[in-house]
Amino acid sequence: MSRVFNFSAGPAVLPEEVLKEAAEEMMDYRGCGMSVMEMSHRSKMFQTIIGEAEADLRELMGIPDNYKVLFLQGGASQQFAMIPMNLFKNRVGDFIITGQWAKKAYQEASLYGKANAVASSADKTFSYIPDVSDLPISEDADYVYICENNTIYGTKYKTLPDTKGKTLVADLSSCFLSEPVDVSKYGLIFAGAQKNVGPAGVVIVIIREDLISEEVLPGTPTMLRYKTHADAVSLYNTPPAYGIYICGKVFQWLKKLGGLNAMKEINEKKAALLYDFLDQSKLFKGTVVKEDRSLMNVPFITGDEALDELFVKESRAAGFENLKGHRTVGGMRASIYNAMPTEGVEKLVAFMKDFEEKHAK
Amino acid sequence: MSRVFNFSAGPAVLPEEVLKEAAEEMMDYRGCGMSVMEMSHRSKMFQTIIGEAEADLRELMGIPDNYKVLFLQGGASQQFAMIPMNLFKNRVGDFIITGQWAKKAYQEASLYGKANAVASSADKTFSYIPDVSDLPISEDADYVYICENNTIYGTKYKTLPDTKGKTLVADLSSCFLSEPVDVSKYGLIFAGAQKNVGPAGVVIVIIREDLISEEVLPGTPTMLRYKTHADAVSLYNTPPAYGIYICGKVFQWLKKLGGLNAMKEINEKKAALLYDFLDQSKLFKGTVVKEDRSLMNVPFITGDEALDELFVKESRAAGFENLKGHRTVGGMRASIYNAMPTEGVEKLVAFMKDFEEKHAK
Repeated sequence: MSRVFNFSAGPAVLPEEVLKEAAEEMMDYRGCGMSVMEMSHRSKMFQTIIGEAEADLRELMGIPDNYKVLFLQGGASQQFAMIPMNLFKNRVGDFIITGQWAKKAYQEASLYGKANAVASSADKTFSYIPDVSDLPISEDADYVYICENNTIYGTKYKTLPDTKGKTLVADLSSCFLSEPVDVSKYGLIFAGAQKNVGPAGVVIVIIREDLISEEVLPGTPTMLRYKTHADAVSLYNTPPAYGIYICGKVFQWLKKLGGLNAMKEINEKKAALLYDFLDQSKLFKGTVVKEDRSLMNVPFITGDEALDELFVKESRAAGFENLKGHRTVGGMRASIYNAMPTEGVEKLVAFMKDFEEKHAK
Repeated sequence: MSRVFNFSAGPAVLPEEVLKEAAEEMMDYRGCGMSVMEMSHRSKMFQTIIGEAEADLRELMGIPDNYKVLFLQGGASQQFAMIPMNLFKNRVGDFIITGQWAKKAYQEASLYGKANAVASSADKTFSYIPDVSDLPISEDADYVYICENNTIYGTKYKTLPDTKGKTLVADLSSCFLSEPVDVSKYGLIFAGAQKNVGPAGVVIVIIREDLISEEVLPGTPTMLRYKTHADAVSLYNTPPAYGIYICGKVFQWLKKLGGLNAMKEINEKKAALLYDFLDQSKLFKGTVVKEDRSLMNVPFITGDEALDELFVKESRAAGFENLKGHRTVGGMRASIYNAMPTEGVEKLVAFMKDFEEKHAK
């Protein structure tokens, strides 16, 4: 067995010890004689798995009691519809467009009412976060929507927008559990698991109870109502049980590591290795304005497309996978989620130095 | 490691060799240095996994070229909405009510138009399949809906309804791949994976191309349109990749076994062991009329609730898990899906004989 350093933007690297445990428990979960994949979701064994996962997540994030935690399916893309279907009362939503995913959420919401783009960084290929201190928030807005960490572009909000009293809804998919969050500032947080938490096929929703209502838009499917899942504690129908089990193991791993403060410290050090190198490099440079840089996704370029291509090819041969940038940004992108070992970034930087020595003019 | 015989109705037993392979490949899938859980869904490696899964399923079922195969999320419950949202043109659907799941599909469809119950076996706790040879099919019905195998009640259609030319839509969740199927008789087949195919969190949809249309009901989310997923070959957004990988392994296992004809023969022999015993038992009896018996789900009772309870308790202690019947039927239920070894049923019958000797009056 030889593991690569996997810089994929998602699905992404998972902690090695989580995968090891999952492999060991595959045929017989803790003496119950079956795999978690084979377990009735109504069994006591699985109730314990999902119950502990929720409790650990609540502890890690300090989720207040007036918030529900839901383990759902359909990814962020399904949330783009589910949010307006459930939260639109005036059918008005204000969106801050910081990339492709925020834009998709905005477009989907416009199927159900008035979606306003109150700010955007499209003018500079989403390489920064707009000033959100005094936005033209709509008076009748049901919520203000942000994508807090932008996977493709490598930006992250360092301060939350002033929503002028409106509910804040946030996609945290690519920065979920990477640092502490004050949940009470949000009405709804959601995150696809496949970046920082577990396998694809699970989306975690943290929603303030007053936003969960019977009153949804006409034609909202039963499965797309938050109330359906909140009332049934995520067991209205068969949940993505194996994925939830893996998420639970990742929560345990984070707790052992010291929780989100400890994780943040590690992530800051890890990202600094790469950013500090980029800032003094004669060949490579980061594409994001310094103050809005993400700790999770680091896009960079050489400024020469042929050289970028060579770098991706040679890095791959050296055991660094998925460093090719998104087609809309070009160049390279290193996604360095929680589970990326510091060693992986150290080795990447060493490789970049070597490459620079050979190719810098 | 000691494996139990798991008679769960779903999530349910998986082939031991599939789980073994998955465990072996957990840390490093075929030399690529990462788990399938960590793999970008846009990578060549995953494209091969999903491509082979689809090709193997097409081969196993003999799926005609004018049908699409989709790997989706949200389970059968989400299909209950997705089907009318996509297939309603006249907003009329005819439903045959053979149990709780057919009823739920019927209720959900009634959110979107006129859902007619054209036949039902509710009068006898769904212990039989109604005569479907001459139903009062609506002239403007967009489709006729059936649940082909009824997990809770243990019934199965032996002949498909005469739909009088209308499109047949069928939930095959609990009999999927248990025997050959003539796909061309259906407009749409769907199956939650967690009974006969893989882990929960994947639902497979097989849909005739002419039913995939831009014209859907107003307010249908992008993620709930078949066209979205058909156009993107199930990769519109991140799919439930690990679940699809396990499904693919189960398809391979079925092919090695000799395909669906061979599987049917095994399933018939396996079910006969249990039904033959029930038919001559002085203590136990099946709850379903003989001609409508399922090969997959076998409910039975002693006629004495206290004795049923004792049986469930003692069988569990002897290594037979999840034999408790659904609360609406009571008694016991043995789900003997494809992956239940014949040995499991032989041992269960032996255990039932012992129990009968002790308790029959």
